[in-house]
Parts: sequence; structure tokens; C-alpha cells
Amino acid sequence: MSLSLSLDALIDALRVLPGVGPKTAQRMAFYLIERNRPGAQRLTRQLQQALETVRRCARCRNLSDHPLCSICSDERRESSVLCVVESPSDVAAIESAGGHRGRYFVLHGRLSPIDGIGPDALGIGTLLALVDADAIAEVILATNLTIEGEATAHYLAQELVPHNITVTRIAHGVPIGGELEFLDASTLSGALAARRPL
Amino acid sequence: MSLSLSLDALIDALRVLPGVGPKTAQRMAFYLIERNRPGAQRLTRQLQQALETVRRCARCRNLSDHPLCSICSDERRESSVLCVVESPSDVAAIESAGGHRGRYFVLHGRLSPIDGIGPDALGIGTLLALVDADAIAEVILATNLTIEGEATAHYLAQELVPHNITVTRIAHGVPIGGELEFLDASTLSGALAARRPL
Repeated sequence: MSLSLSLDALIDALRVLPGVGPKTAQRMAFYLIERNRPGAQRLTRQLQQALETVRRCARCRNLSDHPLCSICSDERRESSVLCVVESPSDVAAIESAGGHRGRYFVLHGRLSPIDGIGPDALGIGTLLALVDADAIAEVILATNLTIEGEATAHYLAQELVPHNITVTRIAHGVPIGGELEFLDASTLSGALAARRPL
Repeated sequence: MSLSLSLDALIDALRVLPGVGPKTAQRMAFYLIERNRPGAQRLTRQLQQALETVRRCARCRNLSDHPLCSICSDERRESSVLCVVESPSDVAAIESAGGHRGRYFVLHGRLSPIDGIGPDALGIGTLLALVDADAIAEVILATNLTIEGEATAHYLAQELVPHNITVTRIAHGVPIGGELEFLDASTLSGALAARRPL
């Protein structure tokens, strides 16, 4: 039985959040309404505002408040190196790790013929046009090391061949702090095959 | 560095949700803005509406859309049995379990002198007045089986003595499906002490 229709509707609406099931949604709803109304007010306000202002950067397709994102409009970034990633959270991860001074291109997904995601959905045409227009010298393929991420990287590498630029892939191997004993076989054999002289 | 101020503000606002840290908040924000804008719209709408309409029932203090909640206004409920619980989620749990045909009283907390939560914050005066006004015959104390919940139950039992009614406490013991081997010592010794003839 239902105590409050608007509370039920809120619990149902909270379930759109990733990883939130019925129990967690109920806990969140009770918490917001009972314990933290100012926090709940702030959440509606910020969510509303983000929905209104956040769009895709016209150049790199990353999320941004402005037509051109802060990285694309930053003149100090190296304009000749482009790092291709699957999602905005990958940009956030690489930026916080440091080590990339160029710009990005966000695919918003990976090639997945089963789900009907082809080159058009990922803006690959836009990417290729950008490579020519901006005189890109190197494209770093930083899609995930999953099967679909690898397939996307290989597809992009092929498409980039006629453009006569350097195409690189982020290194795969044993993660820092990783213990060989607990690594999966394919990472370990890959790391052996890709060994480098010291 | 920040990609979008409104996205950062949204990530920060999402952290008010219980159990949501910075990583999860970021994942939720990207998901809402990138993948599920209709769901995000619905969430703001329902949260706004719940904030506007949900209040406490004037009688039992449970959350409700109306001045009197659906349980208090249901004439078919036994009006002489009152079940006292700590929170609205306890009402939801008992209702979905079944077995209680009376009404409720929600404390919205438990006695906790350290946190400055005394009888007034829990509406215990209102509860005692209700017991007299509604000719309650039995009060079931269904606060949690924690130290504070037990202390609250004992305090309430004492306060109810002059009202000359039956005061009961929910049973504690081995949960259904529980294996003795894995139970904590106090539950097990309590279950032995509270044994009943078969």
C-alpha cells in the first residue's frame, strides 16, 4: 500500500540513477524528504540547471557549459595532438592523471554493431574532418581496453591511414602496483609480448 | 580542472544522497546528462513535487501527501492498537510484511542524549496525548533492536505505565532462516532466555 503518491513517484524517479534499486531509492527518498530538505532543494536546482546549460562542445563533443569547452578554447593546449576517448568521464580521468597536453575528441560510446552503434553515432566523420582542418599531427586512441574499445581503435586507425598522421594507442600491460600472480592471463601474455628494452 | 561549472555543481549536489561518494556522484551526473535526460527531467519534477506536497501526518507523524495519512484516515484499521516505530521506512517495512491491522506512530528518531535528541524531538508528548484521546488499548513498541532503540522502548514503557494500557515489545530472537552457528552471542543467549513452550 502507498503512503504518499508523490513519495512513491520520487522513489520511482530515483531508480533512473545507475546502480540504484528499489531499496536504495526508498532510502534516498526518505533521507531527502525527512532529513535533508535543503540538500534536496539544491539537488533539484542543480539538476535543472545542468539540464539547461550542459551541451556538447561543438569541436570535441565533450560536455560543456559553452559552445566551445574550456579545453578547446584554451590556447595553451597543444593543438596538434588529439586524444580520442569513449566518454566525458575518460576526459576527466586523463585530466586528473595529467600527462596529456593536447586536446580531446569524445566518441560518446564505442562501435557496437549489435546495439546499432556505427561510425555515424560516434561522430567519426566529424573527427576525420577535424584532423584535416586542424592540422593534427598525432591521434592518440584512448578507447577502453575492452573488446569493443579495441575494435573501435582498430577501425579508427584504419580510417586515419589516408590522412598520413601518427596514430598511437595507449599502452596496455601490468598496472602500477599490480601483482603478476593475480593478473588475468591475457594482460600478462600481452605484457610479455610488448616487453621493452630497459 | 573543471569542464563545466554546472556539471561540477550537479556532482556536488548528488553527494547529499546517502551512500554516494565523489566517484558515484560523477557517474550519476554523466549518466543523467549524457544518457537519460528524460529520466533526469522526471527526477527534478518528482523531487520538486515531493518537497512541496509531502508533510507529516497530523496524527501519526508519518510522511503523507495529505493532512491525515492514508492509514490514519482508513476507517477499517483497528483504532485501538498503535505501533510505535522509529521511521517512515519502518512503517513501509511492517506494512509490506503484513501482520499489523492497527495504526502507527512515527518517532522520527530514537532517544539519543549525546545528539541532543530528547522526548520532545520524538513527539512523545503527542503520543501520550493520542493514547488517551483515542482510547488506545495496546501500544506495540517496534523501535529497532539497537541499544538506542531499546532505551527508547524502555523509556516509552515507563511513560505509558500511568495510562493503564497493554504495552508490548516486538519479539527478538533468531531470524527465520537464521543459522545458530553464525548468530551473534547476544541474539543467541537472548533467544534461549526467551524460549517458549511448544
